[in-house]
Amino acid sequence: MHAPIQPPPARDKLLFTPGPLTTSAAVKQAMLHDAGSWHFDFNAKVRWIREQLLRVARLGEADACEAVLLQGSGTYGVEAVFSTCIPAQGKVAVLTNGAYGERMLAMLQAARIEHLALRTPENTPVDPMALDQLLAADRGVTHVAAVHCETTTGVLNPVAAIGAVARKHLRIFIVDAMSSFGAIPIDFQKMGIDFLISSSNKCIEGVPGFCVVLCRRALLFACEGRARTVSLDLLGQLKGFEKSGQFRFTPPTHVLLAFEQALKELEQEGGVTGRGRRYQHNHEVLMTGMRRLGFKPYLAPEHQSYIITSFHYPDDPRFIFERFYRSLSDKGFIIYPGKISQVDLFRIGSIGRLTEGDMQSLVGAIELTLEELGVRMPRA
Amino acid sequence: MHAPIQPPPARDKLLFTPGPLTTSAAVKQAMLHDAGSWHFDFNAKVRWIREQLLRVARLGEADACEAVLLQGSGTYGVEAVFSTCIPAQGKVAVLTNGAYGERMLAMLQAARIEHLALRTPENTPVDPMALDQLLAADRGVTHVAAVHCETTTGVLNPVAAIGAVARKHLRIFIVDAMSSFGAIPIDFQKMGIDFLISSSNKCIEGVPGFCVVLCRRALLFACEGRARTVSLDLLGQLKGFEKSGQFRFTPPTHVLLAFEQALKELEQEGGVTGRGRRYQHNHEVLMTGMRRLGFKPYLAPEHQSYIITSFHYPDDPRFIFERFYRSLSDKGFIIYPGKISQVDLFRIGSIGRLTEGDMQSLVGAIELTLEELGVRMPRA
Repeated sequence: MHAPIQPPPARDKLLFTPGPLTTSAAVKQAMLHDAGSWHFDFNAKVRWIREQLLRVARLGEADACEAVLLQGSGTYGVEAVFSTCIPAQGKVAVLTNGAYGERMLAMLQAARIEHLALRTPENTPVDPMALDQLLAADRGVTHVAAVHCETTTGVLNPVAAIGAVARKHLRIFIVDAMSSFGAIPIDFQKMGIDFLISSSNKCIEGVPGFCVVLCRRALLFACEGRARTVSLDLLGQLKGFEKSGQFRFTPPTHVLLAFEQALKELEQEGGVTGRGRRYQHNHEVLMTGMRRLGFKPYLAPEHQSYIITSFHYPDDPRFIFERFYRSLSDKGFIIYPGKISQVDLFRIGSIGRLTEGDMQSLVGAIELTLEELGVRMPRA
Repeated sequence: MHAPIQPPPARDKLLFTPGPLTTSAAVKQAMLHDAGSWHFDFNAKVRWIREQLLRVARLGEADACEAVLLQGSGTYGVEAVFSTCIPAQGKVAVLTNGAYGERMLAMLQAARIEHLALRTPENTPVDPMALDQLLAADRGVTHVAAVHCETTTGVLNPVAAIGAVARKHLRIFIVDAMSSFGAIPIDFQKMGIDFLISSSNKCIEGVPGFCVVLCRRALLFACEGRARTVSLDLLGQLKGFEKSGQFRFTPPTHVLLAFEQALKELEQEGGVTGRGRRYQHNHEVLMTGMRRLGFKPYLAPEHQSYIITSFHYPDDPRFIFERFYRSLSDKGFIIYPGKISQVDLFRIGSIGRLTEGDMQSLVGAIELTLEELGVRMPRA
């Protein structure tokens, strides 16, 4: 007997990933319009988005910062900062404990920008003390770069402490805040941040298609003449917005309309604080449920963000990740594989338009799936 | 008395631009879903899109070509080809008669790739004979680049003749077919094309968010080690698709769902031939109407594409473009400003989900707007 043919489901599977995320219906519905990328109505929206992003970051007039939007994924934003801002004789120290720190190094390598890595193990936050020693010893380092929430594992890095060290040594500080911006409070001034990169499809709960660079205006203008590409020229992009109100090159208009709606919904939820509270609660519900089932998180609780959590595979050969993943997918839940090679992990995100009930439903589906697969768990 | 407050209109304004374009309702509705960018269902769609693009280009197994999708605007795709493919000692000859040819030169400049320009006036197609002389004289030129339809003016460049010259001299030929691919038949083999770049939001009638590079597989693999960036590394992107079926970095998932639908609708319309027929008819209806109103096209008919058409401003000081544009916008029609400095032009696109009736409505709205502005036209 064949399995019955499945008609398309009534609703999308929920995404428990580091992004793209599940978004609200209204965010997606905002994309049901074709906007002219040269038109004044659209330019007004782009302007509002740029201003609202500064408000989300609690940056006022006196901070003299800018929000630059750039077509492409978050990775493009990080590379745009390097590509636009590092002078020919510059040297970048990258603090890294995961794939996104390593990707920064690959970008610097490709651009032939001098660089060095300060590595910590993937379960350990990066080390501001090591940076302090390095910067005292190596005057050639002009820029410091780090990842706020390393979604490779979910570890939260000490951005404030790194920023304090960078500022003490008068170096420029670049933060990849891809999966933290919008949900974890970030104080640009206190944390000594000069360039911050995030993306449209993370905690602002928009859809993917562009990235956001928040930066000190004077520092960006000081980069005149350094751009190594046209597409990723952040200063050129900012000048374009200021000259005509437009993107230099065709923007993902529908994605921007969705982002406008997403920013409104962020505000309705109480801004970064309100959204962070929901995600933190999502994370706690997940942890309680997963512990009850006998899963062990990879990170120590003091290093764990409430963005995404890595769990060890159960210690039972009947646990085969691909079957586990597929069975959860059949039930309407999409989780995420691990990304590190030394340990077998899978990941579950707490971000996006997910609620307590969704986290509980996921835990319930995981419990059922373990039973189906005959996986025996150590009871807590 | 104040003007009555306008509630939001029942439908979007129509876009008579070079893109983003007006798209079908079904294309936009395809974006009402959140897809996991790592999920097998989504990977299958990406694979189908890549294969279907080769079919649209009439490329079969024997052609050994690949369709590489890259996040960002069309400009990113052109820059990605340069950035990935030109060796350190390479030299690119750019045939240019508009802003998009000039943009290629800016990219080569930024990447410090040796280059030279073969310029013709903006109303004149680029010159394959000049290229022939150049390539005979300068053995250092490794690559030739040209724009198929220069939307700066709407001029159609002789890609087949340029390709024949490039092939005769055994140089690699790169074509920006941004606004022609999908609507003007392009024969990769006959035209001697090695790399062709287009975008999601042009004649395929998807929405903006990524670009497409069609290329000869062996030629792309020969570029190993040349990439100057990570984000724009086309070979890395292709290897990513082949290794895991995934984009290396977060793709604009919703935009890809829309593109899948757009490709299906292209096929339903009879492929490139069917779509080209509609656009050509749109263009003819526009020309008939505009000539009747007394407008003069900028280009000679033999150089004019059916993609976008430049018109001279009427010779009456009461014609103020900003007022003309705004009044047409109020009536639900968005046209496009000119892009060249020497002559005052505006542009009207014939592409996107537009019909004969839409072109007639636009001409009617233009006639009414001229009357409102009191612009006197020379009657044909």
